[in-house]
Amino acid sequence: MFRGSGRLVTCAIIIALATGAYADEARRALVLSSDFGTTERFVASMKGVALGVDAGLQVHDLTHHIEPFNVWQASYMLAGTIDYWPGGTVFVSVVDPGVGTNRRSVVAKTGTGHYVVTPDNGSLTLVADKQGVVELREIDETINRRPGSEDSHTFHGRDVYAYTGARLAAGVIAYDEVGPLLEPNIVRLRYQQPKRLDDDAVIGSIAHIEMPFGNVVTNIPKSLVDELGHLPEDGATVTVEIAHAGRPVFEQRIAYVPSFGYVDQGAPLLYSDSLQTIGLAVNSGNFARQFRVAAGADWTIRVARSSARE
Amino acid sequence: MFRGSGRLVTCAIIIALATGAYADEARRALVLSSDFGTTERFVASMKGVALGVDAGLQVHDLTHHIEPFNVWQASYMLAGTIDYWPGGTVFVSVVDPGVGTNRRSVVAKTGTGHYVVTPDNGSLTLVADKQGVVELREIDETINRRPGSEDSHTFHGRDVYAYTGARLAAGVIAYDEVGPLLEPNIVRLRYQQPKRLDDDAVIGSIAHIEMPFGNVVTNIPKSLVDELGHLPEDGATVTVEIAHAGRPVFEQRIAYVPSFGYVDQGAPLLYSDSLQTIGLAVNSGNFARQFRVAAGADWTIRVARSSARE
Amino acid sequence: MFRGSGRLVTCAIIIALATGAYADEARRALVLSSDFGTTERFVASMKGVALGVDAGLQVHDLTHHIEPFNVWQASYMLAGTIDYWPGGTVFVSVVDPGVGTNRRSVVAKTGTGHYVVTPDNGSLTLVADKQGVVELREIDETINRRPGSEDSHTFHGRDVYAYTGARLAAGVIAYDEVGPLLEPNIVRLRYQQPKRLDDDAVIGSIAHIEMPFGNVVTNIPKSLVDELGHLPEDGATVTVEIAHAGRPVFEQRIAYVPSFGYVDQGAPLLYSDSLQTIGLAVNSGNFARQFRVAAGADWTIRVARSSARE
Repeated sequence: MFRGSGRLVTCAIIIALATGAYADEARRALVLSSDFGTTERFVASMKGVALGVDAGLQVHDLTHHIEPFNVWQASYMLAGTIDYWPGGTVFVSVVDPGVGTNRRSVVAKTGTGHYVVTPDNGSLTLVADKQGVVELREIDETINRRPGSEDSHTFHGRDVYAYTGARLAAGVIAYDEVGPLLEPNIVRLRYQQPKRLDDDAVIGSIAHIEMPFGNVVTNIPKSLVDELGHLPEDGATVTVEIAHAGRPVFEQRIAYVPSFGYVDQGAPLLYSDSLQTIGLAVNSGNFARQFRVAAGADWTIRVARSSARE
Repeated sequence: MFRGSGRLVTCAIIIALATGAYADEARRALVLSSDFGTTERFVASMKGVALGVDAGLQVHDLTHHIEPFNVWQASYMLAGTIDYWPGGTVFVSVVDPGVGTNRRSVVAKTGTGHYVVTPDNGSLTLVADKQGVVELREIDETINRRPGSEDSHTFHGRDVYAYTGARLAAGVIAYDEVGPLLEPNIVRLRYQQPKRLDDDAVIGSIAHIEMPFGNVVTNIPKSLVDELGHLPEDGATVTVEIAHAGRPVFEQRIAYVPSFGYVDQGAPLLYSDSLQTIGLAVNSGNFARQFRVAAGADWTIRVARSSARE
Repeated sequence: MFRGSGRLVTCAIIIALATGAYADEARRALVLSSDFGTTERFVASMKGVALGVDAGLQVHDLTHHIEPFNVWQASYMLAGTIDYWPGGTVFVSVVDPGVGTNRRSVVAKTGTGHYVVTPDNGSLTLVADKQGVVELREIDETINRRPGSEDSHTFHGRDVYAYTGARLAAGVIAYDEVGPLLEPNIVRLRYQQPKRLDDDAVIGSIAHIEMPFGNVVTNIPKSLVDELGHLPEDGATVTVEIAHAGRPVFEQRIAYVPSFGYVDQGAPLLYSDSLQTIGLAVNSGNFARQFRVAAGADWTIRVARSSARE
């Protein structure tokens, strides 16, 4: 009898320990991005709230140096990083110019099995196009909001997003406990998809300016330029036009070459980067600063065959 | 006999594991702040020392971009962050212009159940006022100092503070093993507490400049301005005077409004921020830079009723 | 029979748990350094890959603000940080101007029991001189490369170094599974070792410029200057000459004093820092900027006795 109950106790302890071990397995990383910078205390407040949910959570930074209010950049950072993290990782993205207005707070489940907690203000645009959004839920703030934060209206990054993200990452809530299911129609920033315009030209948009070098990252795959009959190895000259909100900003004939050193120092060049995507740079210079070019949904780029305008 | 001892062994192992589990529960996060920046290797050295104490410790950054030697700012960062972290969290704050002198090294226990490891040079000022300091101990460096660091006199952040903080966070030492109990009379920076001056004016100090926008954070609660008969919704004009060490720096009549967009671009405004505290900003501008205003114990601000000086 | 097997099961579970505990003990921290900055998504991609190897890994930053392509600085950061981290810690250092060329990818085991994963391009120079390189292995990319990254040629930091470092830190591979053993002949940046030149002068190199103050850190131990017959307490004047790639950049007679306040504001001084190494500074100023001095293998400094050139 005693012996039997002794074994029961043993089993109970073992089960408790094993449960702890399983809980640990279920725990996923939480990855924060924002436009808060790292000088102020905002990021640390978000992390404190997350660790208050689960003291053992892995909390990491994607970047907090997104340009203030630049939702496009928030989207670019997410879409370019998600694939390198384990499935189940929870991303919290807070670039939130509309905090306090009635934009929705959502958690998206991607086609790659990751989660993104964010205001639905366009930050999911490139994620939807790259990883896909397979399910979308609105955060039910009656449940998923930091206790005691009801009177705070200006820091949802801490009170709603970090808190909900941490609960999901820690396994305190399952995805379907985030809140009601929505049609996966996220707010999308409209931008120029890369495409062949005609026999002579392709068009796309400027996805990003890579700092500190000021190189321009487009969304045009090298394969589209191949179709124009140009390969970097040929060193041909192409005509590049850049427009902002339809207004011309840049137009030049420049060399399409394998890498920077193929043109003179200070000269612009078109090249294909490591992801087989078309980019613009200045050899030993800064293309974006020199030609006052930025990135975003309203920046388009057109590349035309060297013979096209002759 | 054998069976009995077998069970004893089993129990011993289980107890060992359970103890491990408990130890894990007892482990608290360690949160570092300093004026070291993140370019040099100083923060990484502190973290290495902390993980040498306990390889499983959660070590996080509050910020390392405190203005060099600005003890006031160290204090502001602590007081504004502590509440968002779980009870028991150990904060290490190292802004230490007096390193090598005989300022005391202490660990404060706050009224909120957090710990702050710091030189006692004023960095606890705002913590004492907000969270409260309920117990204060001097670090006994004969015990709580990184072994082998006896000849190093210039990096207590690593050798004393990170090391002691990590031991406390990891549960290697209990709080009463930090060192001898002190009267909780911390070194205080003297600053203007917010108060009603007379029927027409309130006075307080500039607590912080919020970067990168240059907004001025005061310590004057909105409720004090309410008492002057002004509400943001009324859009009244008030007279704001700012002085540094008693010398006038700024005096203007400006609008007291609900938010930035209520005044012209480039115009200054007084408003009530998310914590119901009075702030100053320039719509689409930078108040601190434009009017050469900074934050600290010696910066005072006076807000007078619109009718007061007419 | 049942009882016996029951105990066997119990033991198996306990062993499994105990193994888990041991595995946790075997897990070492992973510490990343690079010239990537923290604005872009590169560091986060490396961390995602590392946590994909082992979700429980401790991943920390040394610094990501090394000057772009400055291999010397990468080396300085490693050599100055390693000793403060627990034995077994795995450092990943990625300053890689030669990415895509045939420079070797290696993991060095130091005399202090730490590991450094890096392109062998000079980044181990100061580690070899300070901690020592006792064993060197080339990374076998047929095994130790992120699955699916075969077509990526420009981000070995993520695909090879972070991945291999994480596997080593997590105990997924042992050190001898990194790849084939190499002769420990690392690529060395040649620099001026500190030495006595003659009765009147010592010579060495500029190891680092400490930011943001612009103080010059040399590799000359105070003891060498002692041999010239000068102690800081004497406040003597010495002649300091600095050359870059053999070309003179700076020559002045300056005071050798215990600390900054011993000279006028704006005046340069020679002093002995916390590591008993000779440094140069300007009281309340920035030596490096004022005199256009930088750090690196090709920067030498000569200190001569005050009487030597009279």
